[in-house]
Amino acid sequence: MGPHPAVAAIRLAVRRVLHDVLTEHSTPALPTAGTTEEAAAGSGRAPLVLVACSGGADSMALASALAFEARKLAVRAGAVTVDHGLQPGSDLRAAEVAARLTAMNLDPVEAIAVTVGREGGPEAAARDARYAALDEAAERLGAVAVLLGHTRDDQAETVLLGLARGSGIRSLSGMAAVSGTADRYRRPFLQLDRQTARKACMVQSLPVWDDPMNADPAYTRSRLRHEGLPALEKSLGKGVVEALARTAQLCRDDADALDAWAADADPSVRDEAGLLECAKLYALPPAVRRRVLRRAAIAEGAPAGSLFARHVEELDRLITGWRGQGAINLPGRVVARRQGGRLVIRQG
Amino acid sequence: MGPHPAVAAIRLAVRRVLHDVLTEHSTPALPTAGTTEEAAAGSGRAPLVLVACSGGADSMALASALAFEARKLAVRAGAVTVDHGLQPGSDLRAAEVAARLTAMNLDPVEAIAVTVGREGGPEAAARDARYAALDEAAERLGAVAVLLGHTRDDQAETVLLGLARGSGIRSLSGMAAVSGTADRYRRPFLQLDRQTARKACMVQSLPVWDDPMNADPAYTRSRLRHEGLPALEKSLGKGVVEALARTAQLCRDDADALDAWAADADPSVRDEAGLLECAKLYALPPAVRRRVLRRAAIAEGAPAGSLFARHVEELDRLITGWRGQGAINLPGRVVARRQGGRLVIRQG
Repeated sequence: MGPHPAVAAIRLAVRRVLHDVLTEHSTPALPTAGTTEEAAAGSGRAPLVLVACSGGADSMALASALAFEARKLAVRAGAVTVDHGLQPGSDLRAAEVAARLTAMNLDPVEAIAVTVGREGGPEAAARDARYAALDEAAERLGAVAVLLGHTRDDQAETVLLGLARGSGIRSLSGMAAVSGTADRYRRPFLQLDRQTARKACMVQSLPVWDDPMNADPAYTRSRLRHEGLPALEKSLGKGVVEALARTAQLCRDDADALDAWAADADPSVRDEAGLLECAKLYALPPAVRRRVLRRAAIAEGAPAGSLFARHVEELDRLITGWRGQGAINLPGRVVARRQGGRLVIRQG
Repeated sequence: MGPHPAVAAIRLAVRRVLHDVLTEHSTPALPTAGTTEEAAAGSGRAPLVLVACSGGADSMALASALAFEARKLAVRAGAVTVDHGLQPGSDLRAAEVAARLTAMNLDPVEAIAVTVGREGGPEAAARDARYAALDEAAERLGAVAVLLGHTRDDQAETVLLGLARGSGIRSLSGMAAVSGTADRYRRPFLQLDRQTARKACMVQSLPVWDDPMNADPAYTRSRLRHEGLPALEKSLGKGVVEALARTAQLCRDDADALDAWAADADPSVRDEAGLLECAKLYALPPAVRRRVLRRAAIAEGAPAGSLFARHVEELDRLITGWRGQGAINLPGRVVARRQGGRLVIRQG
């Protein structure tokens, strides 16, 4: 008898990602096919894959699948759990998660304590601290990949959060299956629903921890998860999560193509001095023009994260709605003005 | 003392659209500036602008603003109300709405009875019948434009309905400000919130009729309006409607640009016989390739409305995931297969 369908699903998802990682990192010195457990264990150079595990159902399921699949491949599997220090006893919690990961035969296993700042709000600050710790661990341990347990449900929530910003398709494209320095971060469960991960933990008798932050209505994502998205499903039907995840993928591809177009168009709309020519900008499709303008503002020092759609729209009106308006102030003390048919963008 | 801000807002929105319409339809025979009411009324050739009015707050506000603004311009203003015949007494209701429109000095005013079919569900069938009647009336009366009362809230709902389809940015782009044959349909209130339209009716003492369909939870849009969207606002904040409307505009521009790219790329990926070459398709960005494939399927007879993202994905796998798979059946009895490095799409 094979494993429970939920367990089969999480293992298949991890197997596919490990296959990708091994293909990308294969070296002639490593056996690539028909590798036995002994050969893998015997090789000190077998690549290390880490799982980032909070102790919640998604990442515990991921850890269990990684432990299982790594045994069959030339891969060493380890784990990192991050202690954000945001609740009393979080250090004990992290130690307990680490012990469970070790019991899965993951090695090395680290519990890393971080200090969460305040920048960008509590959720963003926790995320920044967590990724910094994961990056540091990956570098120090020489891991070729760090698996993250984000599911299709997380992706749907991320798309809705992006939608609420109203800043276009890049923010609708959610989380990438592959991201980070050297394509380190992999999200094997991005096509898998949260229910499957929970089920896989249950049938494998894995104890899971529900982070109280996930249920705290003080956090936008938590409200979205427990109220917004269920209400949307009630209105629009059960396929909403899948539709949002598919939207993310389509938007990502669209955004990539349009960014490439804008990068291509950029030199063609500049004069010999490298200044943007308004007439040539005007002739571009609006979607491409706005991206060229955004790129230009960022190149002059405007921080990408603070440059909103409304800033770019205002810039765009210097081209499409010119009525002699004055200089425009952009984030990062960047100033844009129209001068003699040129758009001059400079840090002030 | 000027008008109430809500009334000023609806009039400004209509004035802008009338200005656009007049600019597009100005003829040397017509006085274009400084036209007085008398001149406009005296000219049999002053262009006719119709408002489509259900008797609800949005379109009653629109009708009142059109009646007011047309008096100041070389424009004749008329109205059409459509009786969908879906509720008992709907004919009396339509006659009552027509009487109110006539009392606004709109002329001509027509109440048109239509028969709603079943195709595509009750909402789509009612919409199809309504637009057919409006098209017919516009043609017969020689109207240069038909104003529609869709607000920013309607736009937000439309974006969410598109999101639920998960079929990409074209379905996220909502309703266009300008659409239909000869750019006939105009939506002056697309940037205006529903509350402003209601307020404008109230302060002008315009009686409005609340269509029971709008509150009937049997309809998806109604559920979305009364449950889904308010819950989303509660999770994400009050700016959601505005963010969705802005997303629509950005997505529309992006979709237009990518469609143009695909149309441009199309001839470059075909051989002398006009067949699509798989190797050349493979080299395109995924977002462009999928659009070329979609265009090709539609050109061979697949109905655009039935061709979903999953169909195009399956087509795309003939290019990017080729493992000898067989022919693919698409809507409209269109069959696609890969043959000798070419993609052959034909109606069977």
